[in-house]
Amino acid sequence: MDYSDVLAAAGRIDGHVLRTPVLEVSAGIFFKLELLQHSGSFKVRGAFNRMLSAGELPPSGVIAASGGNHGLAVAYAARALGVRAEIFVPEVTSPVKVAGLAALGAHITQTGAIYSDAAEAAAKRAAETGALAVHAYDQAEVVAGQGTTGLEIVEQTDGVDTVVVAVGGGGFAAGITLGTSMGGESGPRIVAVEPERIPTLHEALRAGEPVPVEVGGVAADALGATKLGAIPFEILSSARVKSVLVSDEAIAEARRTLWARHRVAAEPAGATAYAALLAGAYTPAPGERVAVVLCGSNTDPATLA
Amino acid sequence: MDYSDVLAAAGRIDGHVLRTPVLEVSAGIFFKLELLQHSGSFKVRGAFNRMLSAGELPPSGVIAASGGNHGLAVAYAARALGVRAEIFVPEVTSPVKVAGLAALGAHITQTGAIYSDAAEAAAKRAAETGALAVHAYDQAEVVAGQGTTGLEIVEQTDGVDTVVVAVGGGGFAAGITLGTSMGGESGPRIVAVEPERIPTLHEALRAGEPVPVEVGGVAADALGATKLGAIPFEILSSARVKSVLVSDEAIAEARRTLWARHRVAAEPAGATAYAALLAGAYTPAPGERVAVVLCGSNTDPATLA
Repeated sequence: MDYSDVLAAAGRIDGHVLRTPVLEVSAGIFFKLELLQHSGSFKVRGAFNRMLSAGELPPSGVIAASGGNHGLAVAYAARALGVRAEIFVPEVTSPVKVAGLAALGAHITQTGAIYSDAAEAAAKRAAETGALAVHAYDQAEVVAGQGTTGLEIVEQTDGVDTVVVAVGGGGFAAGITLGTSMGGESGPRIVAVEPERIPTLHEALRAGEPVPVEVGGVAADALGATKLGAIPFEILSSARVKSVLVSDEAIAEARRTLWARHRVAAEPAGATAYAALLAGAYTPAPGERVAVVLCGSNTDPATLA
Repeated sequence: MDYSDVLAAAGRIDGHVLRTPVLEVSAGIFFKLELLQHSGSFKVRGAFNRMLSAGELPPSGVIAASGGNHGLAVAYAARALGVRAEIFVPEVTSPVKVAGLAALGAHITQTGAIYSDAAEAAAKRAAETGALAVHAYDQAEVVAGQGTTGLEIVEQTDGVDTVVVAVGGGGFAAGITLGTSMGGESGPRIVAVEPERIPTLHEALRAGEPVPVEVGGVAADALGATKLGAIPFEILSSARVKSVLVSDEAIAEARRTLWARHRVAAEPAGATAYAALLAGAYTPAPGERVAVVLCGSNTDPATLA
């Protein structure tokens, strides 16, 4: 996979997804407001790219397992393209996300404790029905779709030194790494932020390969992959990528601050990148230009304040 | 007043306010996300322009009466410039706004039923203390400051046919009318949207001059001027301006839709412009390019869903 896959994805999904805006909150510090995206997260980019790359879709439609956001995105894209969507979510998925799936007309199965359980059940079901599987992060078309966010960041900021982004299974961070590369080996530093309680990338980099980790904490319904994806691992094993961890308390505080100071409504995963700056897990140098990707807003607004 | 006042204001307040982003939600329909502005509304633009136009500020600082948003903006600007702020608000002001004023260190007096009562008390107090009065809408520097939003809309959209904006005392709509004029008599149509229960502009245009109206309904703490300002009236008595009214129910529905579909958290006044489109009070022609100004987010997020 390379930059050209991301460019091709951008052409394919144009008109189906929003070009989300960028807000310069202080000199050289940009929020990429990807949480204003259709379905409330970046996930529609990859979902559309996977589905539009597949040619004619089977009568059984598409199938996906998800902590919630990917399922919402696949259900949204399926509705837009007029096909059936079957979504498997685990018990950890928040009620707001389950209600959102129902509103989009998806066929929902809630099973297993965490994402990997739902993924296993969905794989079995896909084999039975022949539906097109749309993976949450470990599929080239999905990674390329998410990477279109990186193209926009470069254009909208006239370039940054650093992009700060949350990591779950790694598809979004990997896509952005490609999408900001301008086709070369270089590009901005990618600060890949994970909750201390779900360190999939951190442990993969230590081990030299994706390894299973425990999954828990406030962002588990969005960043709760048990293991980094193989495709993301290859891309994120780059000198450009710096892995940092933040506590659940830092994520909760970042989420409160985003609302109180910036009037941005984020779910915990959507505030995780910002938490790295607020908590000092990553401190930009003076004058460093930084894009912070705010990536999800599927949350009960009553819990913001 | 003319376009050059708005250009001068833009130079004066640059760096003190955010250039808020624009989101193209569908082809040719733009949301100007002014509710992401410092202090949660456009009002800081006028507050900074008034204060920075005044030269040295008196030891007693600044004083303002407000339904809430203007007070928050004056308190924010005063804190940024290191001066004292005294803010008068009526009983109708929401607890969220009073709490916000306290957090900004303002000296707060809550008095009278509606904005005009608080304004009377503030004027008396200003005469005693010599503080610089910052009017919520009927002051040239304030109107010019708000108008900088219009300059940004033109730049960020590459031009629109129509701007849809909520009206209270008229300062924001008047400023935008000037700011989108490009220095000539022409410019986009301005659809000036008011709640049926606070028709200050609508009644002023019928009467040929600002006249008192009853004040009530869901947006009264932000659009609750009893009478349109004299300066706004002169500017808004233009063939470019079309006055429309929306019901409280339409405002509430627009607010819910902004959250559910777009993940934008608006207060009722901040959703009033959008209500005109949703409820059909203004229907764009096919292909018409429209900017909808979402202007305030000082609200309890628990009431969004």
